[in-house]
Amino acid sequence: MNALAGLSTPAAVVDTAKMDRNIARMQQGLRELGVAFRPHVKTAKCVEVARRQQAAGAKGITVSTLKEAEQFFAAGFADILYAVGIVPNKFSQALALRQRGCDLKLITDNVEMAQALGRFGQEHGHRFEVWIEVDTDGHRSGIVPESALLLDVGRAVAESGSVLGGVMTHAGSSYDFDTPEALQEVAEQERAGCVRAAERLRAAGHKCPVVSVGSTPTALSAKSLQGVTEVRAGVYVFFDLVMANVGVCTPQDIALSVLTTVIGHQPDKGWAIVDAGWMAMSRDRGTQKQKHDYGYGQVCSLDGKVLQGYVLSGANQEHGILSRVGEPDFDIVTRFPVGTQLRILPNHACATGAQFPRYEAVDAAGVQEWPRFYGW
Amino acid sequence: MNALAGLSTPAAVVDTAKMDRNIARMQQGLRELGVAFRPHVKTAKCVEVARRQQAAGAKGITVSTLKEAEQFFAAGFADILYAVGIVPNKFSQALALRQRGCDLKLITDNVEMAQALGRFGQEHGHRFEVWIEVDTDGHRSGIVPESALLLDVGRAVAESGSVLGGVMTHAGSSYDFDTPEALQEVAEQERAGCVRAAERLRAAGHKCPVVSVGSTPTALSAKSLQGVTEVRAGVYVFFDLVMANVGVCTPQDIALSVLTTVIGHQPDKGWAIVDAGWMAMSRDRGTQKQKHDYGYGQVCSLDGKVLQGYVLSGANQEHGILSRVGEPDFDIVTRFPVGTQLRILPNHACATGAQFPRYEAVDAAGVQEWPRFYGW
Repeated sequence: MNALAGLSTPAAVVDTAKMDRNIARMQQGLRELGVAFRPHVKTAKCVEVARRQQAAGAKGITVSTLKEAEQFFAAGFADILYAVGIVPNKFSQALALRQRGCDLKLITDNVEMAQALGRFGQEHGHRFEVWIEVDTDGHRSGIVPESALLLDVGRAVAESGSVLGGVMTHAGSSYDFDTPEALQEVAEQERAGCVRAAERLRAAGHKCPVVSVGSTPTALSAKSLQGVTEVRAGVYVFFDLVMANVGVCTPQDIALSVLTTVIGHQPDKGWAIVDAGWMAMSRDRGTQKQKHDYGYGQVCSLDGKVLQGYVLSGANQEHGILSRVGEPDFDIVTRFPVGTQLRILPNHACATGAQFPRYEAVDAAGVQEWPRFYGW
Repeated sequence: MNALAGLSTPAAVVDTAKMDRNIARMQQGLRELGVAFRPHVKTAKCVEVARRQQAAGAKGITVSTLKEAEQFFAAGFADILYAVGIVPNKFSQALALRQRGCDLKLITDNVEMAQALGRFGQEHGHRFEVWIEVDTDGHRSGIVPESALLLDVGRAVAESGSVLGGVMTHAGSSYDFDTPEALQEVAEQERAGCVRAAERLRAAGHKCPVVSVGSTPTALSAKSLQGVTEVRAGVYVFFDLVMANVGVCTPQDIALSVLTTVIGHQPDKGWAIVDAGWMAMSRDRGTQKQKHDYGYGQVCSLDGKVLQGYVLSGANQEHGILSRVGEPDFDIVTRFPVGTQLRILPNHACATGAQFPRYEAVDAAGVQEWPRFYGW
């Protein structure tokens, strides 16, 4: 890892060997369950990462913004699900993508937007493909599988001239659990609810070919995915400390870290001050309410070894406070002298990655720059 | 504000009339106290914003990254303080800036870096200007004014061949208070400590011409700045909900908001789902421990009117959950129909602005795009 020593800090480092193992693990698990995998590229927003997911067997991608759709379509990805409810100020951008040959699927969970999108399509001589968002755990958007609204939206999609391509759900509540049993239960609830929604739509005369479910914890915990046609997951590609607390990875599996340098100390407090603050780590404190609170991140050595008990306990914009959990380390000045380079594992890879214009992708051969993008 | 209605969401909106008032207020206050003002441009990272600060009377700028130094120097700003402790992996970049004519000042709080920088300068036939970071409130980096270390670092700067340009401090603990009396006290402690450090260095034979202090709350609360030559502050240019809780602005003064669109509802829970999640708002929950917790932000109408009691109570990456504090609003569907555009005031303007590649700067004449940058 000495290749990292010359980099200006802070920098976002991707350990590509770990990432490749994470990609292979997910793909293998879903292959065994007999379903396709559509990775959510919002985590890395990086073409090089998505190409590795595709090479491992992924079919299509999921995006969280139309900018992602544009960037990945330009890089050769055509089968794209935009997994945030569509609204009129995005109709034109979506239409332009589809007219250029992008197989972009849109989602909604209400009659008004289904109708408005269909009308917009008719005005432009175009049929959109719409998937209906289903709510299987009450954590966010979507329609509960047994509701009358589900069939109303199905009818609104079809009658307004769009194609009803499928149903999709995301069991985001899986992040709140940390035992295999609980995660299997959420996964089964996600599967059963989404399949049920598809069955009701089919019974009402719709084709509804796709049944799409997923979150990293449920995708790695499901025992059966009967009736499901594809799974989506994003953060698994890097993993992070939140996922380690959920129990679907270990800190050693985390492929993303922030390279930082010690810039000073407060010896009486047992603090080292580093040049990775919340701008580099993000403000995400996702482990705060979990069983192990890592502050703003877990400290590792330059070569990636976890330094048990050392965390970023505080953060300002470009300053991090590094300290030992519990008893202060009054030897901090000699342990981590000024100029020492360290790596910090993030609470939430999606949030941390988003702070950087590029990744430093490191493997045995050295470091490569992988551009990533942001914004809308 | 109908000019905003056509924008794709989420978008970062700057109300330039409010921003101009914030700029004028700070500059006027410091003029009355007889000190120069060096704004911290880390908040907006936007040349158009810094030009307005300069036009109002600011002298020089403060930056939090060398990328900011490069971008602002390219835009014509030459007097720049890089206010994060310097480390060797940034020496070359700093030298290159100075050799191109940038009057870049560096800081440190330890002997090792003072010596290493001086040696590096000597190797390249260059004298760096160094300011010593002083700790007046124990919240982060710096040297306490009365310590022996202060004079050791002063000697290391001078003997290694750099120029000791001054002392600087940042009373970041001011964010933890919310009464005028407490803020005045922190401001006086910041002033007195930094002036004392300069006096000790001068008594030891150093020139130490600059005494630089500041944070938004102390800059707006100080009653006297005797002995201080310049003040620094950043977030005042936009203000935010954290600053409203601290008591140095009102929510109506906040110049930055995130434009968002309602994409769906969960009527039984009193939720509207909007397309501004934590990627747009940032993960900053700075008001969580303050007297008024605004969740992920305060909801306003499209024309900027504060909608009392409505906040972003939850956030996923590209989804926000909008709800009423206390009693759920079961009329949320008719109050904020799908497609409604709203504006959300941020907890922390520095963190929220950083998520966007540009601002939509709005005034009576319409909307202009102001680019901003990010990264290192």
